[in-house]
Amino acid sequence: MPHILVDLSLPGIRSLMAFRPETAQPMCDLAEALLRDTEGLSPVERELIGTYVSYLNDCFYCHHSHAAVAACYLDGNTAIPDAVRKDFSRADISDKLKALLQIAAKVQQGGKAVRPEDIENARRHEATDREIHDTVLIAAAFCMFNRYVDGLATVAPTDMSSYPVRAKQVAEQGYGSHIYSSRQPIATT
Amino acid sequence: MPHILVDLSLPGIRSLMAFRPETAQPMCDLAEALLRDTEGLSPVERELIGTYVSYLNDCFYCHHSHAAVAACYLDGNTAIPDAVRKDFSRADISDKLKALLQIAAKVQQGGKAVRPEDIENARRHEATDREIHDTVLIAAAFCMFNRYVDGLATVAPTDMSSYPVRAKQVAEQGYGSHIYSSRQPIATT
Repeated sequence: MPHILVDLSLPGIRSLMAFRPETAQPMCDLAEALLRDTEGLSPVERELIGTYVSYLNDCFYCHHSHAAVAACYLDGNTAIPDAVRKDFSRADISDKLKALLQIAAKVQQGGKAVRPEDIENARRHEATDREIHDTVLIAAAFCMFNRYVDGLATVAPTDMSSYPVRAKQVAEQGYGSHIYSSRQPIATT
Repeated sequence: MPHILVDLSLPGIRSLMAFRPETAQPMCDLAEALLRDTEGLSPVERELIGTYVSYLNDCFYCHHSHAAVAACYLDGNTAIPDAVRKDFSRADISDKLKALLQIAAKVQQGGKAVRPEDIENARRHEATDREIHDTVLIAAAFCMFNRYVDGLATVAPTDMSSYPVRAKQVAEQGYGSHIYSSRQPIATT
């Protein structure tokens, strides 16, 4: 049960966004700017970084949600998001993305865990400043989203067939305010 | 030295916001909605939560910046932000804020570290759902801001007299886009 009274028909972060639309809007805007941008990293690479950090933070709702969005961009291929979570060094992804996932894992531990050699490794694989920036901020943002979702003990769907349905909506329409504005702020459950 | 090429005349998160205005705007909007709101928690209480979490994350720039904003709201009293960082149980703050700081400390560790008894303790001190929500999200957001600032190794001013000057600007004008938009995106240093 969530720690506060939210609409239980809305899963994970959506229940919190409906509870507090004033903070939901900038979080949606941040997700849209960070995860849907196509300069440098592709949307699927961005979702894979978010999936991986959420997995490291053991956030069931977030890592399944974003793995499903990544799979959607990959025409239903779930093997890559699965492999990234299990052992990204063996996943069928570029060496550049592997170097960036290594940076993301350091950010998950803490900002100071990122070492110059992690950055140099990413540059050796032709990562740009913007790609390094976006990787660090995606990883940092998921350290927020994951803590928000689990810190208030939101409910995650256990019906795994619901994740691809939702993912398709995100892949097609993005992280707009429809994510939270389609329901009443608080239901009396 | 920062890991990416940013304007070195801008400290901490401001250099990153100037580097990437598209993600800066929603982060400023989130800070404004979370830290300047007056319903439930006061702005000074919100800044103290951010200060404390930044201190736990060992983010020099963030904990000094936000302690200075809290002190500004307190008419220059630095004893309270200092005491909150040193040992909040002995600080001259309400028992409710102490209970909320305890929740914030759990969020800093990870979302799942927040236990029902932490929430019950806050409720015993008359914390509302909205105050608990805002505490968790402020703590989670600072886990993002701190990782962003330190994960890219931004430069923090060592001249401690600069923090109150900046804090006065934030206290008077808020977290608007003037924070990053007053300089060129990237300087050639």
